[in-house]
Amino acid sequence: MNKLQAAQMETLVASLLESYEEHSVISNIDSDNRLNREMIIQICEMVRQVLFPGYFEDKKLKSGTVRYHVGELLENIEYELTKQVGKAMECAGAQAECECRCRAEEIVQSFLYRLPWLREMLAKDVQAAYDGDPAAFNTDEVIFSYPGVFAITVNRIAHELHVLGVPMIPRIMTEYAHNLTGIDIHPGATIGEYFFIDHGTGVVVGETTVIGKNVKLYQGVTLGALSTRGGQTLRGVKRHPTLMDNVTVYSGASILGGDTVIGEGAVIGSNAFITSSVPDHTRVSIKNPELQFKVRGSVQTQELGQEGFFNRKEND
Amino acid sequence: MNKLQAAQMETLVASLLESYEEHSVISNIDSDNRLNREMIIQICEMVRQVLFPGYFEDKKLKSGTVRYHVGELLENIEYELTKQVGKAMECAGAQAECECRCRAEEIVQSFLYRLPWLREMLAKDVQAAYDGDPAAFNTDEVIFSYPGVFAITVNRIAHELHVLGVPMIPRIMTEYAHNLTGIDIHPGATIGEYFFIDHGTGVVVGETTVIGKNVKLYQGVTLGALSTRGGQTLRGVKRHPTLMDNVTVYSGASILGGDTVIGEGAVIGSNAFITSSVPDHTRVSIKNPELQFKVRGSVQTQELGQEGFFNRKEND
Amino acid sequence: MNKLQAAQMETLVASLLESYEEHSVISNIDSDNRLNREMIIQICEMVRQVLFPGYFEDKKLKSGTVRYHVGELLENIEYELTKQVGKAMECAGAQAECECRCRAEEIVQSFLYRLPWLREMLAKDVQAAYDGDPAAFNTDEVIFSYPGVFAITVNRIAHELHVLGVPMIPRIMTEYAHNLTGIDIHPGATIGEYFFIDHGTGVVVGETTVIGKNVKLYQGVTLGALSTRGGQTLRGVKRHPTLMDNVTVYSGASILGGDTVIGEGAVIGSNAFITSSVPDHTRVSIKNPELQFKVRGSVQTQELGQEGFFNRKEND
Repeated sequence: MNKLQAAQMETLVASLLESYEEHSVISNIDSDNRLNREMIIQICEMVRQVLFPGYFEDKKLKSGTVRYHVGELLENIEYELTKQVGKAMECAGAQAECECRCRAEEIVQSFLYRLPWLREMLAKDVQAAYDGDPAAFNTDEVIFSYPGVFAITVNRIAHELHVLGVPMIPRIMTEYAHNLTGIDIHPGATIGEYFFIDHGTGVVVGETTVIGKNVKLYQGVTLGALSTRGGQTLRGVKRHPTLMDNVTVYSGASILGGDTVIGEGAVIGSNAFITSSVPDHTRVSIKNPELQFKVRGSVQTQELGQEGFFNRKEND
Repeated sequence: MNKLQAAQMETLVASLLESYEEHSVISNIDSDNRLNREMIIQICEMVRQVLFPGYFEDKKLKSGTVRYHVGELLENIEYELTKQVGKAMECAGAQAECECRCRAEEIVQSFLYRLPWLREMLAKDVQAAYDGDPAAFNTDEVIFSYPGVFAITVNRIAHELHVLGVPMIPRIMTEYAHNLTGIDIHPGATIGEYFFIDHGTGVVVGETTVIGKNVKLYQGVTLGALSTRGGQTLRGVKRHPTLMDNVTVYSGASILGGDTVIGEGAVIGSNAFITSSVPDHTRVSIKNPELQFKVRGSVQTQELGQEGFFNRKEND
Repeated sequence: MNKLQAAQMETLVASLLESYEEHSVISNIDSDNRLNREMIIQICEMVRQVLFPGYFEDKKLKSGTVRYHVGELLENIEYELTKQVGKAMECAGAQAECECRCRAEEIVQSFLYRLPWLREMLAKDVQAAYDGDPAAFNTDEVIFSYPGVFAITVNRIAHELHVLGVPMIPRIMTEYAHNLTGIDIHPGATIGEYFFIDHGTGVVVGETTVIGKNVKLYQGVTLGALSTRGGQTLRGVKRHPTLMDNVTVYSGASILGGDTVIGEGAVIGSNAFITSSVPDHTRVSIKNPELQFKVRGSVQTQELGQEGFFNRKEND
């Protein structure tokens, strides 16, 4: 082939090297604290194997020997995660290296000690998914295939690291889950037990969201901020809503704002747009999505709305 | 590094082993019928190679030798799928092993005999995608890159297995497609020929949905249940709608309920929320999405709505 | 196992071979111009490594030797991309092979010369993501994990190839990004600098969309066509909207139609459905999403709407 001549290639490389210096915001050269995204995802999968033993390994686990399997996994997780946490905290940077590295080790050990508790939480999440979905065949199916369960698993792992003060790594983990599931939960969100997201594509749960126990979300739900035009000046401010226990939010609904509290047992109907608080045990739905019907030329208007939504006591 | 001491590690492992017993709902140890999710996805991809020969292999297929290639693929599919179906049916469990295993073999053979028919269906789906999208360059582009085609391919494979009574495996397959495309079609859904989903992210098609021929869905469409609060008590009940032939459903529309029938040739507008039946040849749209305009302080209200939707005869 | 008998297998293979001839629209046998989807995705990732040096390699890059790394990457990209472009242009077909192949080489060289400029654009996109999101920790986090940045990176790569007249390959690239992010941007769309998509799942940007500078989109936004029932007869027609500089479009909004122009600095509220032009510096929102509240039997109606949307000056 008529390839680029050596001289042309040199010119091109030179102009790229120049660009690497000029736009250094998107260059990561000579960095001692370079994160390894693939490894972080692999760590996430190893932790998932510890949490759901026997589901995702490529071999059958036996009760007589599972301790060796788990022990080795934990050793790998500790080693690799400590390395990545150290980099995320820039231990190889200007800081006192030793102190920083010890802090990274402490964080990882604290994280590992939380694993049995994470299993408690996840057992409840799996149960919530099975109980809440008539299409669920059994809990194994839920574990093998439900995107909502995958997303909350990764989120609970990432949230522990977030609470322990680890930067960047939690978000890489949750965006990995977002890639696979279309469910975008920020690692900062606080989520109670027995949580279920059905279908899930398009769900957004913002950084400062607080969610109680036994909450169920459907696809396309946003728990978001009223406005983020303030950009970085809003960092740390509670911008996202609070959902109390036993809340259900149907598909496509948006609940926005840091002062918005959805009361206990409230039910938010499909596509509702909520920017202020809702009392306990209240059902909110769009009243008036008036529909227009046109059959071969004639136009009729009918207020169909979500009346059914209020009359469906038997099913709810 | 200051690693966990041996004693600490032992304590952690012990507490995890305890948790494996206590929360056995998310443990899969000593299981003889452990499904292999990765293998199920690989089987799905092998079937896709049989259905679309020459598109996804890493070599060029030649007409003189393609029979050997297909024969070998089929042999692998038969072997691996029979193993997985046997596990899904718990053939290694309390049941009479032999009978169960023979049933698994029969199912896989029935499935394989359906492949030529699946190709007929998929040839029409590809044609529907090409015909329906002005941005489609040719049918090869559609096969290589359209998520809607990927999703319906996996769904048609999974649906055959579902109809043959295979548990779990079909759902693992469709959730694999959901991961990649954002299109969530339950393997139980019955879908007619010449089906096209454009863009597709956020589409949900529930388990008991029935769809006729030549139906087109856009991104974010839900064909769902009115309420699933009944959870497992609703299993098997028709909870999702029926769409007759030649129906179009625009982006973001929701059609809910097992008694809801969308008549032949009906067109459902964007974001419509439908909970009762729509007659044949009817166009339904939201009448009144009144918009408010604010320009530097003044507020004007204008009923813009989807009027255009009713006046776009030339394009529709 | 009771496998398919040799004769049965032969019958099945024969019926598949027959189907390969009958439904040749989904067969790709004896093709000299067979694209390799996996290789195209790998090329895309190699280009991303050139554009974001040091982020996605499995080794640390050093300033002293980065030129060799980049040079080798470019050589690989040139070789593999030229091969794929040649196939996409059907150089091994009826055309004068030599001329076609030279054209493929020229295209790839033109593409490579655009890489420094692509870096300029992407540096601004990354900055826009960081500036626009209070949850962003730093620009590295944005590069490692933000789906909007991944999607616009792949789109800018694919758009260059699209402009240079390469068929099929650009769409395979953007659908790869769509798979991972839920963001579906057609390679034909023209997008200005400092572009940010937040969250992103469900975003659709059509082929003939034109977007100015400093535009921000949220999840679920559609920049689409009014109707595509015309199918292939509409190819090449401007069917998608134009957004001028400094436009913000909040989640779930749809802006449709080739004549629709959103004026400079306009803000489109959540779930708005826009089918005609909007003047400069105008805020548009749904006026009347009236909500119905039901607390234990009583029903109250309240016009909650998006009033807040108009009163949030401090934050915007």
